[in-house]
Amino acid sequence: DHVLVLGYGDLTEPILEELAARHGVEYAVVTTDETAARRLSERDIPVFTADPSDVEPLERVNLAGARAVVVATEDDARDALAILTARQLNPGVRIVAAATQRENVNKLRRAGADQVISPTTLGGHILIDCAFGADSTDATTDLLGGALDDVTDLDDATDSDDAADLDDATGSDDAADLDDATVSDHTSN
Amino acid sequence: DHVLVLGYGDLTEPILEELAARHGVEYAVVTTDETAARRLSERDIPVFTADPSDVEPLERVNLAGARAVVVATEDDARDALAILTARQLNPGVRIVAAATQRENVNKLRRAGADQVISPTTLGGHILIDCAFGADSTDATTDLLGGALDDVTDLDDATDSDDAADLDDATGSDDAADLDDATVSDHTSN
Ligand SMILES: [Ca+2]
Ligand SMILES: [Ca+2]
Repeated sequence: DHVLVLGYGDLTEPILEELAARHGVEYAVVTTDETAARRLSERDIPVFTADPSDVEPLERVNLAGARAVVVATEDDARDALAILTARQLNPGVRIVAAATQRENVNKLRRAGADQVISPTTLGGHILIDCAFGADSTDATTDLLGGALDDVTDLDDATDSDDAADLDDATGSDDAADLDDATVSDHTSN
Repeated sequence: DHVLVLGYGDLTEPILEELAARHGVEYAVVTTDETAARRLSERDIPVFTADPSDVEPLERVNLAGARAVVVATEDDARDALAILTARQLNPGVRIVAAATQRENVNKLRRAGADQVISPTTLGGHILIDCAFGADSTDATTDLLGGALDDVTDLDDATDSDDAADLDDATGSDDAADLDDATVSDHTSN
């Protein structure tokens, strides 16, 4: 019932922070990057220095018993291989991935990922939303609130006009379109 | 009343798509990247091959009359310089930026950006939200709906259970915390 993080890249530290914030969730990283692996193990984060697209290391970290697999390095081709191996070893596990190049979103899906995001597409959306001002701060807050709906142990008050803004957002008809562009969901069948 | 895109990087194409989707919005790119500039002008996108941290090119693209400035390349130091120049030339213009390295979010704010996002932090959040399944697709849809609340010319119906999901999201108290981590708002005074 643990989460496996395959590969090490720019998104890995934010991913590990998110996992650390979810109390009680166990996780481990598999990467060929020896420098990253050493730094992680100095911070007591379980890490296996091995190729995450090889069968043996994924068996060693008990992929068969994993809750989810997160695949997000700058090398989409290696990500695709890791996804293929993970899917082969565990047909039912939830696999999520980040496509560094937007044109690879569908390839990572076809490799077996359940959901694939494009951080650059997402970043462009949010940045332009912010550029058009006024509502945008609230829209972004909504967005971040929505992205992290499981964390409930903080004391700061949430800005209470988010609901009205969301109403605007869902009033528009673009969700399906954006879903195509940025997040690719494979499992809603 | 136009939008200026300063520099060319991984986020620029998503940014230009967002701008193109907002009918009636005029925009121009300023970049030293000659290959990118040639490709953009082949697509009839107004582009100026010049350093966006120099005063003269920003005067030429009428920064004084701009509605907003978007700064998002992989080089945060150059982004900081472009922000400093833009802010100097137009104290009132809205400036938004993307920090490639998360630790630069506050530096880009101090350089004069009104809002700074960290696409990697955002990507990590969303990916882990997706990894934990179930609600996450909806949370991501909320999030994307929120990020693009101005586009209203599409016909697809929006999934109507978004509102309930947002309720969950805003019910938690993490928005202020996340705001620190991922989006930095300078102007709410
Ligand atoms: Ca990738
Ligand atoms: Ca940057």
